[in-house]
Amino acid sequence: MSEQQLARYTYLGPEGTFTEAALRAFVGSEHVRTDPSTDVVSALDAVRGGRADFAVVPMENSVEGGVNVTLDTLASSAEPLVIVGEVVVPVAFVLAVVPGTALSQVRRVSTHPHAWAQCRGWVGRELDGAVHVPATSTAAAAAILADRGREAGFDAALCSALSAERYGLEALAEGVADNPHAVTRFVVVSRPGTLPEPTGADKTTLMAHLPDNEAGALLDMLEQFAVRGVNLSRIESRPIGDSLGRYSFSMDLEGHVAEERVAAALIGLHRVCPLVRFMGSYPRWDRVAPHVAPGTHDADFVAARTWVERIRTGQV
Amino acid sequence: MSEQQLARYTYLGPEGTFTEAALRAFVGSEHVRTDPSTDVVSALDAVRGGRADFAVVPMENSVEGGVNVTLDTLASSAEPLVIVGEVVVPVAFVLAVVPGTALSQVRRVSTHPHAWAQCRGWVGRELDGAVHVPATSTAAAAAILADRGREAGFDAALCSALSAERYGLEALAEGVADNPHAVTRFVVVSRPGTLPEPTGADKTTLMAHLPDNEAGALLDMLEQFAVRGVNLSRIESRPIGDSLGRYSFSMDLEGHVAEERVAAALIGLHRVCPLVRFMGSYPRWDRVAPHVAPGTHDADFVAARTWVERIRTGQV
Amino acid sequence: MSEQQLARYTYLGPEGTFTEAALRAFVGSEHVRTDPSTDVVSALDAVRGGRADFAVVPMENSVEGGVNVTLDTLASSAEPLVIVGEVVVPVAFVLAVVPGTALSQVRRVSTHPHAWAQCRGWVGRELDGAVHVPATSTAAAAAILADRGREAGFDAALCSALSAERYGLEALAEGVADNPHAVTRFVVVSRPGTLPEPTGADKTTLMAHLPDNEAGALLDMLEQFAVRGVNLSRIESRPIGDSLGRYSFSMDLEGHVAEERVAAALIGLHRVCPLVRFMGSYPRWDRVAPHVAPGTHDADFVAARTWVERIRTGQV
Amino acid sequence: MSEQQLARYTYLGPEGTFTEAALRAFVGSEHVRTDPSTDVVSALDAVRGGRADFAVVPMENSVEGGVNVTLDTLASSAEPLVIVGEVVVPVAFVLAVVPGTALSQVRRVSTHPHAWAQCRGWVGRELDGAVHVPATSTAAAAAILADRGREAGFDAALCSALSAERYGLEALAEGVADNPHAVTRFVVVSRPGTLPEPTGADKTTLMAHLPDNEAGALLDMLEQFAVRGVNLSRIESRPIGDSLGRYSFSMDLEGHVAEERVAAALIGLHRVCPLVRFMGSYPRWDRVAPHVAPGTHDADFVAARTWVERIRTGQV
Repeated sequence: MSEQQLARYTYLGPEGTFTEAALRAFVGSEHVRTDPSTDVVSALDAVRGGRADFAVVPMENSVEGGVNVTLDTLASSAEPLVIVGEVVVPVAFVLAVVPGTALSQVRRVSTHPHAWAQCRGWVGRELDGAVHVPATSTAAAAAILADRGREAGFDAALCSALSAERYGLEALAEGVADNPHAVTRFVVVSRPGTLPEPTGADKTTLMAHLPDNEAGALLDMLEQFAVRGVNLSRIESRPIGDSLGRYSFSMDLEGHVAEERVAAALIGLHRVCPLVRFMGSYPRWDRVAPHVAPGTHDADFVAARTWVERIRTGQV
Repeated sequence: MSEQQLARYTYLGPEGTFTEAALRAFVGSEHVRTDPSTDVVSALDAVRGGRADFAVVPMENSVEGGVNVTLDTLASSAEPLVIVGEVVVPVAFVLAVVPGTALSQVRRVSTHPHAWAQCRGWVGRELDGAVHVPATSTAAAAAILADRGREAGFDAALCSALSAERYGLEALAEGVADNPHAVTRFVVVSRPGTLPEPTGADKTTLMAHLPDNEAGALLDMLEQFAVRGVNLSRIESRPIGDSLGRYSFSMDLEGHVAEERVAAALIGLHRVCPLVRFMGSYPRWDRVAPHVAPGTHDADFVAARTWVERIRTGQV
Repeated sequence: MSEQQLARYTYLGPEGTFTEAALRAFVGSEHVRTDPSTDVVSALDAVRGGRADFAVVPMENSVEGGVNVTLDTLASSAEPLVIVGEVVVPVAFVLAVVPGTALSQVRRVSTHPHAWAQCRGWVGRELDGAVHVPATSTAAAAAILADRGREAGFDAALCSALSAERYGLEALAEGVADNPHAVTRFVVVSRPGTLPEPTGADKTTLMAHLPDNEAGALLDMLEQFAVRGVNLSRIESRPIGDSLGRYSFSMDLEGHVAEERVAAALIGLHRVCPLVRFMGSYPRWDRVAPHVAPGTHDADFVAARTWVERIRTGQV
Repeated sequence: MSEQQLARYTYLGPEGTFTEAALRAFVGSEHVRTDPSTDVVSALDAVRGGRADFAVVPMENSVEGGVNVTLDTLASSAEPLVIVGEVVVPVAFVLAVVPGTALSQVRRVSTHPHAWAQCRGWVGRELDGAVHVPATSTAAAAAILADRGREAGFDAALCSALSAERYGLEALAEGVADNPHAVTRFVVVSRPGTLPEPTGADKTTLMAHLPDNEAGALLDMLEQFAVRGVNLSRIESRPIGDSLGRYSFSMDLEGHVAEERVAAALIGLHRVCPLVRFMGSYPRWDRVAPHVAPGTHDADFVAARTWVERIRTGQV
């Protein structure tokens, strides 16, 4: 296959980010072209504009929660994108320094604010009094430190082991994370087209606005899932943006829109919500098949529809 | 039209019952053949066996509640019947006697137990100490009294004015009912075939079994209606018959199975209930159109289905 | 103990009814005074008027459903009564005749309409063409037959074995019931006073009116039970009586009002229903303890209330 | 009043932040001592440690959503704090520069990431190609720019008008915000003690964990509010932190824990959730009284409890 025919991936850069690690995990041994973007918005714009086929961006972190810029940018666009895959990667940081720097010399530490939040306890114990210098990504902190050294304005970067290695830094400490089980979930995004085939272990991502000023509107929305036996594996509120108290909800459902119960829930949601956006049905990273409750298998829906169709033609 | 081509109606007889009055109200000026049946089971069997096209039977009374034999016979049959119409008639009784009988001579009063229940207060005031002699119908009491006179074993019948007139009895008292607003609802039943056309003001009658031994099963069933905005105008429990604590529910929904929200509710019900029987969609006697909540009009269902169909083909 | 001090029971008579059998099962070896009433209303009036301490009346049958006169009379009175116990007895009929009568001679059969309904299949097979002569109770049919013989107007009575024996009739057939597992549940009623002690396996009986003209009112009522983990073992609708479409619900809850979850559900019900009537907490006949869901034990309620009380005083 | 007796407030500093503006709006003409903290965690720690009586910190923004560090720090502490007040302030930015700088010279812009997100559209139009330099707060960006000038590493700060003024910068542009209606909500936090008195227009803030691995757990939690007529004005999910898919929910209820319906909902929540944290009942900034549904006024709860108490003592 020529270089021109390879799938083109962009990702939240620079090189060495956890996002790049997620991309590598996703494509495995497939040969692809990769090109970092400076931020999530740019990565998604590259796909919209046709400069990339796929973008890999962070969606949620087990410590910090949803990545707002991803949730909002995916949900709000006039040119919709869809999620076609997900990757979950463990998050572990190293304290990266210019080779030769001692721990006692580290006074200012640069990293992304989310990373800082996840290492706060460790920093308090090991680098008491150290100050945070915000960076746009963990890898950016590493890149700047490697590039400018003492002129960087900080002494160390909290970044991935991959970043430290790629930028020629030394890892003074490893496994620097308050929660050793922390993971980040990344999504692979493309322009709409063919849906990924259902695998039996899929997720469907949606965004829905609630009706205004209706007590119980969230309850009513959740009932639409419950009566079809559809479980939610994620729900996050996002402000609609023009006032406090108005929310949209970003959700992951267990199942694929090709499955009857998911399709039925979406139909119900479309009826009761002023706005619903479908954002993809795709295989789960953990390949765990959902529990499908009695009466909610595809065959149950088909049998029930057939029964009603017969009734409508006068056969009881 | 020849006599042979007239529609053949049977009804809960004998002649002069409230059921016959309901039949007359239902057919209006149409010429039909009528033939009384001795009881509800026989009337319904006549339709099943092809000896009648329609049966008119009592369904519920505003004082006494559902008529068990009608509910159970309609719901349980191997050869299903469907309701194609309803009639609501006011219920007012007369105290009918052999002409010449004085009120002070009335010691034993015959009538159907439901009628007796509806006149208990009046009897207590006006005929203190009078004894009830059960009859299979109010008209039967009148017929027996007219036929046997003093040998009937009772002195008066509580029946319709029509019965008293038809059997040549004298109405010693009129308007004999504890509740002057009491009404009885009758249904017109036929073999399955073409459904009555939706009129915009229809009812759908169902019978459903609940899943065994599940706390909350009734709640789950009602949720299937609520999420599609379908209202119930009647719900009655009936024992399933093999033990206490197991119930089927007989229900009337506001709407016609040709309407999307009703069809969707039936599909949901079919999935969650071990047994559902459709018993007809037919015009309401009062012609009151139901309130259709936002998001539950036919167009809302069609738009939502179209949206999901587009998603399934990769268009977002 | 003197005769004057014995508890005085009345029951739906005459002697020999299933109700008398239920009374005997309930009191066991206790010495009591018994006195039959002619109907359910009279039995309950005897307790209200102080002429009896307890009344035993039928409440529901596994084939025919609720006994309307009992449900309505208990629920509607200005002078409330409460249920203090229940008894469930199997229902099996005999075909009782004047000794010497042959099966082939039986053309007219008298019994209570509920009993007739429960034997319809057997009668159809064994006494094809036999006509029903309604009686006020199964025992009344037996008593009349024994008293009048050929002048009774019928040839046989469907009644309990006890009735046949007591009235000196011959059982031409036994086990006459379409459903061999049929049972009837009776309740023991007294004037209000001390509640029966909770036993851990109790029922609470209620009657509640729904708010008018509110779609979803039944669902809302059931939610009041669901959120406190209270299960219903019986629910029956009864017309409120002044029009079709308005219902009260007669219900049995699993548990005793002395238990927190039941009390909480009653409090909720009282808030949302225009009328609620408490009709007793009493031991279950089958002594089966209910499943109490996590978070709904008495201790959970007490802990939660204590927590809120602390919050209200500024302790978090 | 001596300086020593003045209430001591800390807030998310440095001087000139929107948070300081919120503090000023909250205290009005009251004389208080104020002392900025470097971050939210430090501000809350100052209250816990007794170095301040109150901390003012941002809670949510109408564009960016919840402020995670505030939600998480308030919810997770072993030494609980409570919210005693709220303030909502409009958010409008100025583009602040060292006096004499021209718009065309602005290539690098520093501000807090949330502020950057809210001005992204404006920056795209007016400063195409400008790069974001993250700062720990909008005021910090202004302070650094004023302090270091050209050595700051950026050319302009997006900050409040108050910041620009206080740090002697020049506002090159005003009203710099993509959404002119954007507001931020701040909360005033203290150690537990006396609850603010109910005013009739209050909020109650809670954090609750859902039971693990239970489909429908969120629905069940929301039902606890719905059956008591308690509305939510905010709900946000936060990861519990040890894996994806486990959430806690941060919520604001309409009403004060001193009100019956709110107390009842909290009792229900405590029973069904493995962890619930009360985080304060306090007056709403907008003073809008909630709609209290029929059956959920304090008097309804009191009447219902009284009724059940009477039942429990044998009075029906």
